[in-house]
Amino acid sequence: MAVEKSVQGQKPGGESKKGDPKWLTPTEMAAWRRYIVASRRLLEALDSDLDQHDLSMADYEILAQLSDAPDRRMRMAELAEISMLSRSRLSHRMKVMEDAGWVKREACPDDKRGFFAVMTPKGWKAIVAAAPDHVASVRERFVDKLSKTDQIVLAEIFERVGNDLRSEIN
Amino acid sequence: MAVEKSVQGQKPGGESKKGDPKWLTPTEMAAWRRYIVASRRLLEALDSDLDQHDLSMADYEILAQLSDAPDRRMRMAELAEISMLSRSRLSHRMKVMEDAGWVKREACPDDKRGFFAVMTPKGWKAIVAAAPDHVASVRERFVDKLSKTDQIVLAEIFERVGNDLRSEIN
Repeated sequence: MAVEKSVQGQKPGGESKKGDPKWLTPTEMAAWRRYIVASRRLLEALDSDLDQHDLSMADYEILAQLSDAPDRRMRMAELAEISMLSRSRLSHRMKVMEDAGWVKREACPDDKRGFFAVMTPKGWKAIVAAAPDHVASVRERFVDKLSKTDQIVLAEIFERVGNDLRSEIN
Repeated sequence: MAVEKSVQGQKPGGESKKGDPKWLTPTEMAAWRRYIVASRRLLEALDSDLDQHDLSMADYEILAQLSDAPDRRMRMAELAEISMLSRSRLSHRMKVMEDAGWVKREACPDDKRGFFAVMTPKGWKAIVAAAPDHVASVRERFVDKLSKTDQIVLAEIFERVGNDLRSEIN
């Protein structure tokens, strides 16, 4: 890219303190570009598919995790950890969904600073209504385009990528 | 998941018009969950890495594309197509970056409804400053975790996934 040439051109014959940037090779660039472009588009498409149920992908994720928890309640910290959300993003979505009547927050009796996220019957109804359409979208746009081998390889790669990010995002 | 059982439970012995939802198998679910969780975290981490340069991932993408175009200018429609952005998202980011003095919009002389996105010298300076740090983040968080085979497989999979979404997002 033009930017790469320009950055290299800034230090003719010399070396910066950090060393010259290690630009991506063509094979690395192809993997990165196709992954990032497709993923951004996929997230937008899935979000837009959920519009008919007045849910975003993040909301769906929160409700799905709560629906599997005992008594449909979970500590906020644990919910952030298990879901795809940073704590700040989770707090924001919880506030929006609290206004919609789908979840509520309750103080933990044994931890002054802690809160539970609790799904309401209305929230349960919302996710039960959305689930069949959402899984159909995920199939059509992603899962059904993968061979069994693709699925196994992807799970392995993204577990590796995700694990190192897990501890950072808070 | 609890939701899946509940949806199935709603139609005991019967069938809905659309047929019962085809829930994900454990292998499909592992691929989907690990991919989506890691990708959301990766995007957040890369966005946050770019904070020091007052750029978002979307902004970086727009500037990178413009920096490769002749005269650092491109039709808005083409820029949306080539980048990872929907047209509405592109318009929004262009407005923010126009206020920052990094880009400007110019009417196309031969097309009354069309606009060019043009990168300013200030925009060029911004991306040249950000590029070495950004490529280092992309390497550290993603590319350097992939074997050569992983890279080839990912490029192939996400080209397939992305192509079908390309025409939709506008």
